[in-house]
Amino acid sequence: MTLKVAVAGASGYAGGELLRILLGHPKVEIGALTAGSNAGTLLGAHQPHLLPLADRRLQETTPENLEGHDVVFLALPHGASAEIAQQLPDDTVVVDCGADFRLTDPQAWERWYGGTHAGSWPYGLPELASQRDELTDAKRIAVPGCYPTVSTLTLQPAIAEGLIEPDVVVVAASGTSGAGKSLKAHLLGSEVMGSVSAYAVGGSHRHTPEIAQNLQLAGGDAVSVSFTPLLVPMARGILATCTAALRDGVSEDDVRRAYDKSYADEPFVHVLPEGQWPTTQAVLSSNQVTIQVAMDADARRLVAVGAIDNLTKGTAGGAVQCMNLATGQPETTGLPTVGVAP
Amino acid sequence: MTLKVAVAGASGYAGGELLRILLGHPKVEIGALTAGSNAGTLLGAHQPHLLPLADRRLQETTPENLEGHDVVFLALPHGASAEIAQQLPDDTVVVDCGADFRLTDPQAWERWYGGTHAGSWPYGLPELASQRDELTDAKRIAVPGCYPTVSTLTLQPAIAEGLIEPDVVVVAASGTSGAGKSLKAHLLGSEVMGSVSAYAVGGSHRHTPEIAQNLQLAGGDAVSVSFTPLLVPMARGILATCTAALRDGVSEDDVRRAYDKSYADEPFVHVLPEGQWPTTQAVLSSNQVTIQVAMDADARRLVAVGAIDNLTKGTAGGAVQCMNLATGQPETTGLPTVGVAP
Amino acid sequence: MTLKVAVAGASGYAGGELLRILLGHPKVEIGALTAGSNAGTLLGAHQPHLLPLADRRLQETTPENLEGHDVVFLALPHGASAEIAQQLPDDTVVVDCGADFRLTDPQAWERWYGGTHAGSWPYGLPELASQRDELTDAKRIAVPGCYPTVSTLTLQPAIAEGLIEPDVVVVAASGTSGAGKSLKAHLLGSEVMGSVSAYAVGGSHRHTPEIAQNLQLAGGDAVSVSFTPLLVPMARGILATCTAALRDGVSEDDVRRAYDKSYADEPFVHVLPEGQWPTTQAVLSSNQVTIQVAMDADARRLVAVGAIDNLTKGTAGGAVQCMNLATGQPETTGLPTVGVAP
Amino acid sequence: MTLKVAVAGASGYAGGELLRILLGHPKVEIGALTAGSNAGTLLGAHQPHLLPLADRRLQETTPENLEGHDVVFLALPHGASAEIAQQLPDDTVVVDCGADFRLTDPQAWERWYGGTHAGSWPYGLPELASQRDELTDAKRIAVPGCYPTVSTLTLQPAIAEGLIEPDVVVVAASGTSGAGKSLKAHLLGSEVMGSVSAYAVGGSHRHTPEIAQNLQLAGGDAVSVSFTPLLVPMARGILATCTAALRDGVSEDDVRRAYDKSYADEPFVHVLPEGQWPTTQAVLSSNQVTIQVAMDADARRLVAVGAIDNLTKGTAGGAVQCMNLATGQPETTGLPTVGVAP
Repeated sequence: MTLKVAVAGASGYAGGELLRILLGHPKVEIGALTAGSNAGTLLGAHQPHLLPLADRRLQETTPENLEGHDVVFLALPHGASAEIAQQLPDDTVVVDCGADFRLTDPQAWERWYGGTHAGSWPYGLPELASQRDELTDAKRIAVPGCYPTVSTLTLQPAIAEGLIEPDVVVVAASGTSGAGKSLKAHLLGSEVMGSVSAYAVGGSHRHTPEIAQNLQLAGGDAVSVSFTPLLVPMARGILATCTAALRDGVSEDDVRRAYDKSYADEPFVHVLPEGQWPTTQAVLSSNQVTIQVAMDADARRLVAVGAIDNLTKGTAGGAVQCMNLATGQPETTGLPTVGVAP
Repeated sequence: MTLKVAVAGASGYAGGELLRILLGHPKVEIGALTAGSNAGTLLGAHQPHLLPLADRRLQETTPENLEGHDVVFLALPHGASAEIAQQLPDDTVVVDCGADFRLTDPQAWERWYGGTHAGSWPYGLPELASQRDELTDAKRIAVPGCYPTVSTLTLQPAIAEGLIEPDVVVVAASGTSGAGKSLKAHLLGSEVMGSVSAYAVGGSHRHTPEIAQNLQLAGGDAVSVSFTPLLVPMARGILATCTAALRDGVSEDDVRRAYDKSYADEPFVHVLPEGQWPTTQAVLSSNQVTIQVAMDADARRLVAVGAIDNLTKGTAGGAVQCMNLATGQPETTGLPTVGVAP
Repeated sequence: MTLKVAVAGASGYAGGELLRILLGHPKVEIGALTAGSNAGTLLGAHQPHLLPLADRRLQETTPENLEGHDVVFLALPHGASAEIAQQLPDDTVVVDCGADFRLTDPQAWERWYGGTHAGSWPYGLPELASQRDELTDAKRIAVPGCYPTVSTLTLQPAIAEGLIEPDVVVVAASGTSGAGKSLKAHLLGSEVMGSVSAYAVGGSHRHTPEIAQNLQLAGGDAVSVSFTPLLVPMARGILATCTAALRDGVSEDDVRRAYDKSYADEPFVHVLPEGQWPTTQAVLSSNQVTIQVAMDADARRLVAVGAIDNLTKGTAGGAVQCMNLATGQPETTGLPTVGVAP
Repeated sequence: MTLKVAVAGASGYAGGELLRILLGHPKVEIGALTAGSNAGTLLGAHQPHLLPLADRRLQETTPENLEGHDVVFLALPHGASAEIAQQLPDDTVVVDCGADFRLTDPQAWERWYGGTHAGSWPYGLPELASQRDELTDAKRIAVPGCYPTVSTLTLQPAIAEGLIEPDVVVVAASGTSGAGKSLKAHLLGSEVMGSVSAYAVGGSHRHTPEIAQNLQLAGGDAVSVSFTPLLVPMARGILATCTAALRDGVSEDDVRRAYDKSYADEPFVHVLPEGQWPTTQAVLSSNQVTIQVAMDADARRLVAVGAIDNLTKGTAGGAVQCMNLATGQPETTGLPTVGVAP
């Protein structure tokens, strides 16, 4: 069986990463590649690293051009997926890398994104609670945001086992590709090299309610999330530092056991050996999440640190992992499990 | 009046930054430059950016070579300052950039550094509580660590005014120069470029008790500090993200007023206008601290972000600021107030 | 005497660097700051590193707003200077950081820039041939391009003394700030970090004829220039590798003597001691040029390497150096002579 | 058929890259992993990106430990391969990533490396002249240096077709991983970030005679090579700018035709479409070489620019490509053909 796959938004960073992974997927034939303002140009002009597809011409992102595929990946600006998605056949697997169908609560949607809630789809994080079941054979999948992916997985065992108070503080340092290829002054190389800054401070990043939604799913109770993203001088990667007050009586052993047990069978989540800490470099271009935990005995807090590649596990790799589940293939098919370092 | 100034440890990063600033100080004559294993070599081999001093030969770091100066800066490995310092005349102004005399509590010293507590000196952060008075005309000064400098100043108004609970979480992203010129594999360019990592996680960084000591001085009560440092791909700069639960009834106005008032007269601490956030690039090579605050209404937490150049305000600039106070000069003399950007 | 100085184009990188230097100049009062589309906004929004000027509001770039100053710096897009300049009083010192008045040959201008040649002004490279005399008391000055500054000074002694054949190959690696704050996809941080590329290959960069013009001035004869610029992952700095066939009988001693002699009295050009090679880091934010030479005995070529900060000596520092000459001040007044490193 | 493969020097950068590629090779079983001073430790401590091999313990690099494998890769310090190699069975395929067997001329060896010439092995650059034939079924292979790989392939068509004079100038900008994991001060992150420098200037880099040897093989005549390597702030990648005087009568068409024809059937060498220039980012972690050419009509020179990943095509990818040839597999088996970008 070969899946015919289309990518809408093929000239952007998420689209490029989808294609990089799909080129190595043994069961995929790459079909239509579409774009917005770049329609009509060659892919090679936008994704020079994808040499085997350099001569493919980008079509317009229309339902017609996306028809006739087994799987359609949408890597479009936020808000653009809903309209396209409802015009695609019900039996096409549609995997949306945008935010349109992530939040389950219509009120949360309206507050954080504005406009009408388009609904919610099975949430593409197989490692979260019982999501894997929901994704199996799903026809519509909402890929998580990059920050929620790493923050959720880094905190899940502690929340699920009730080891920490439900007030978490997440500070996540991200490379610039998370902001996409948008032409904004603060994303210029001259501005980002040699500089670290915080943005959306005070809980105003749209990934905040998504993290809270996930942690509630993990633990059953509402979780308060203080989330601060940092922009750091690298193209790819997120390192999330997650901390919360430990519940009384929780020992370091409890913590380590909870983490080891939670992810023992997960192919893409690795709790590192004691003494080894995650680096974004070690997961560059890989679909892995690496996690390490420590107890701060003085401050009585858990500190858990997780690393991902925002474009791979944080977006395109996660999306392909979900496609595998939705199409009945081994979950790990075609997904990179080693990083590129140094 | 011209001050004759010696720098011990002139071949390292802190020593180089001291000399960069002192070369622009109108009241300073640069005297002895000393080093450890680099003694006997020319300064130009180690500090190629200090062209006017390229032909100066490094002497050994001995009390004899440091005699006869009005001011001696010690930029030595931790633990090396105490022995040298006690052999210098009492009326020499000795400014120690190391940790030896920072902690006031002997037990804290023994726990975090080991060995015998050498005592404590006036703490070189003029903007902290009543430290400016203690530094005026002081003959011995302990320059703060880089993380404590930015963390303390970023949290001080909130602690001093009782706006937050005394449990703070600090995640501080630092450039690599904070680790000095030490030849360690994880500091190689190939390892740090394109990578972010956390280290000393769980409260084990030696700057933790120093931050706690400062915040207690600021507010009168013990403060619990959860501190996680990050290594990011740049040479200079620290961005500290500091967060704590807001006390009941505290409004955004209260917060902003406290910060504005605290630092209104400080020449080197700038609370930025609303909507503008600190970047390390904007303070590169300058003695400024920039701070911005936000309230997270959902999480009921204050998030305060501060930026410094770890080598300038975080080490050498702070040291020269203290020298100015100790020698009766205007506090801002010779200190850079603008950054180098982009 | 205090000079009242205006900067047109104050929100860009060259304008910001001019202001950074002028803030440290003891004889300057900063007057009007003007901009194009940023007129009406505060300088602090564009140049957060210039804290002392953060509250200054940008005016429109008009002759009226630039009137009443002793010196006007133009840091405008290429082609915009000529029109403004002719509307400024003859006794105002006008220093143009753009290309409009650099080329002396109208045909070269038409070929490389198009349109009508606006004329040529004294060329702001005091270290080139007899330019210092022309700049003394000049009322109109054309600041060189960044690549021509470093390439010319790195090759001048060899050309002037006839040590090399007049066919030079220059490969110059530049940081991204040389391209200005323009919003172009290839200048995004995600694109430049971790990447090196060549551009304008095959001699099509507009700085090529300017280098050739300078070298002819240095040596008397036409020089053929093969120039390739590289974009490298850093914000500032240019390292120029310049090579040419050695003339028969030329020894390494001849070469070293020529370089040492040429620049012995230059305050801003340093021929490094044997064995030490230029790095862009060592001249970051300084007005220095560092140069080193080697003979390749097998290939019978001279290889000369020069480093500058493209925004300082390559633009704004060079411009202030010229202002000093034009206004009768010591040439080095207010100019940084040490770099910021690491 | 599955090949049992050992890697000597598995804790270094070349060793790590070999393992990254071999993990994706469908016909390989990874056998012994050996090291020098790191013997006895776990691979995961040195290569955290190779999660599937994290628990493998490094053995000492001895002939005994390397016995019983079909293929042995040597990724050892220069000079260490010869002794090990001669103790391995004749029918083991030995692929040396070091320099020991690259130069064919004993005198050249003595001059550039010193000591006794160990001999020369089939040279592992299948795209060079008739090397592919020599590598097929070879039992001993000398993998080229990274600079020679990209420089040779970028110049080969012009040399082979007699389009340029045999005096070439190569300036090649390299990431820091080319220098290995050696603990040297100039390789620290603080030193390399924000800095470009030249090294081994004047033709003293040991890759110079290797480039000359290759170009002579390509064209039949001796070629003079002026080679200058640059260190730039990135971990991986080389961009080589190669220029030479054009022979009389050579047109741009001649040049383009020669390049297109030379590499039309090469799976790993891509002459880019006109107007598109190589970037190191586009070949990151891929085995591809991308090349573009331009004629400088004024300077009458060819400028050819080539990009590779120094660790992949420049070392480990090239080595595996040779292993494929030597073991009768399709040359492209297991080799990455797309880059990781951005």
